[in-house]
Amino acid sequence: MSLPLGITLGDPAGVGAEVIVKALAHPRLRRVPAVVIGDVATMRETAKRLRARCEVVALSEADLLAGRLPSRSRSKGRRVLPVVAVSELGPTARRPGKPSIGGGRAAYRYIETAARLAMAKRIAGIVTAPISKAWVTRAGFPISGHTELLKELTGARDVRMMLAGSRLRVVLVTMHVALAKVAAALNTRDIARTIGIAAAHLRRYHRLARPRIAVAGLNPHAGEGGLFGREEGRIIVPAIERARRAGATASGPYPADSLFFQAVDGKFDAVIAMYHDQGLIPLKLLHFHDAVNVTLGLPIIRTSPDHGTAYDIAGKGKADAGSMIEAIALAYDMSRTGRF
Amino acid sequence: MSLPLGITLGDPAGVGAEVIVKALAHPRLRRVPAVVIGDVATMRETAKRLRARCEVVALSEADLLAGRLPSRSRSKGRRVLPVVAVSELGPTARRPGKPSIGGGRAAYRYIETAARLAMAKRIAGIVTAPISKAWVTRAGFPISGHTELLKELTGARDVRMMLAGSRLRVVLVTMHVALAKVAAALNTRDIARTIGIAAAHLRRYHRLARPRIAVAGLNPHAGEGGLFGREEGRIIVPAIERARRAGATASGPYPADSLFFQAVDGKFDAVIAMYHDQGLIPLKLLHFHDAVNVTLGLPIIRTSPDHGTAYDIAGKGKADAGSMIEAIALAYDMSRTGRF
Repeated sequence: MSLPLGITLGDPAGVGAEVIVKALAHPRLRRVPAVVIGDVATMRETAKRLRARCEVVALSEADLLAGRLPSRSRSKGRRVLPVVAVSELGPTARRPGKPSIGGGRAAYRYIETAARLAMAKRIAGIVTAPISKAWVTRAGFPISGHTELLKELTGARDVRMMLAGSRLRVVLVTMHVALAKVAAALNTRDIARTIGIAAAHLRRYHRLARPRIAVAGLNPHAGEGGLFGREEGRIIVPAIERARRAGATASGPYPADSLFFQAVDGKFDAVIAMYHDQGLIPLKLLHFHDAVNVTLGLPIIRTSPDHGTAYDIAGKGKADAGSMIEAIALAYDMSRTGRF
Repeated sequence: MSLPLGITLGDPAGVGAEVIVKALAHPRLRRVPAVVIGDVATMRETAKRLRARCEVVALSEADLLAGRLPSRSRSKGRRVLPVVAVSELGPTARRPGKPSIGGGRAAYRYIETAARLAMAKRIAGIVTAPISKAWVTRAGFPISGHTELLKELTGARDVRMMLAGSRLRVVLVTMHVALAKVAAALNTRDIARTIGIAAAHLRRYHRLARPRIAVAGLNPHAGEGGLFGREEGRIIVPAIERARRAGATASGPYPADSLFFQAVDGKFDAVIAMYHDQGLIPLKLLHFHDAVNVTLGLPIIRTSPDHGTAYDIAGKGKADAGSMIEAIALAYDMSRTGRF
């Protein structure tokens, strides 16, 4: 049996357990080996509430490190779902929709454990269910998000966020930056690095020998020759040239308003977006329910669904598992394609 | 017969004549009465080159002002296409793909004539084929575009640009502004006016008694409570409140990355975008070939296709008339719905 993916439970009060159970029950993922890194009782309660055809079995981190996995992946037509019990949650911490310090702490531990298991090559990659930055921080672990935390835990040098759907992939140069500060936050080195990281990812995990990478301009009409802004000539063009010298098949800067149609039309394998909404507006328009967040530049595979903890609907059986299904499917594909 | 639409030829060296002939030959527009405001020879040559089933007949502005239109709209199965001859172009000025001063001057005259005819209520509205700002300016008429020129010619107080497709309508608060300057270019008055103008337009021309208008935020996550920028609270919220007090059904500011999906999903009738690419990225992604540009706030109807002169393909028969077809269809619908 190939290495399982490790799926972290995320915030136990969020929709994580629900979308994990739903996703793993989906026919598309029937053959994907997976372990959940989280809490046994939360997973059992969720599976029961959803009447899911799966059997939760407890596992320890030591079991997994020693390669001890359940002998069967299915039992009586039901998926055997191993859960690596990281810390036992009391009933308060696992109440759906009621986040807590205990839940925040546990969510942090799940990621830590998953990173350790992935670095030790006991899991093929990590898929993370959503956490609440605020509650993890309240629990004493100030973090700015999964991406930065995993960068730290794996000793990665430089990471980028890619959002991917079946029709479009975007990689962001800047993330949570006020629009007025985006232009000042751009520099040639970061853009060239983003192109390089994106190219390396697509070569390694998507078997694209020469991934075609389009770089968006910053200004309307990509500045129209300097008429509406000069960052294209001053910062972006040199970055594309630098990335090309380093071997990437990159082109641009293209006017952002027509670029995404071209990309979706098949002209490019990924688009480098200068700022959050430039990339996420088209991505979410096409992939509102099934976009996947992929961290590029880590020494391990990591994907996640593109939604939050959704406390308001947690425990109600209403969460859409589409994005989690895609996140698991993509991590699985990457684990089989990637060169290790 | 109801009043015809007036379609300006645009730059005679561009694809204007071609997309007009193709559009008017389209079955969808069979019953739409139209006159072209332009050059008889250019229209005849184009119709001949495209082997279009239409018969170009010359008309003068005086004919139209006096209500003298051809008695039949069809002849031997062919559309009778009246062309209001504004100025006769020499062979040099009507060579496809070769813009000229003479062509730039003529393009300006067509718009001027159309505005006059529309203000005199001799045409039901104007559909403008693309011009080249550069060549019109070289011909001695410095303009920044159709929109500003029509504002001036009709004495309108305040105009806005709407881009519309069957799935999405966006109205822009700022247009050709460098991204770094967008935040500083926003103010409460302009945003409130944009909402009001959009609401008035949708009420008048789309029979929407209470058009639902969504206002986009400027920053990622609409600022996330001030974490990534404060323009939402400082400028946009007060604008929405002002517009609501004036009777508009407006809401927001919404995070732009998920807003457009909601709008396309039917939750809103129009989206107010703070800057060019915020609105045009989703619009062009969905309506690359059939978006229509509508000028709001004029005392007359004006639409246009959302593409340029495309000199590179002019005269080759390759221009896509999709956007012109939609522009004429929308102007026609507006002329029948609007209260005059």
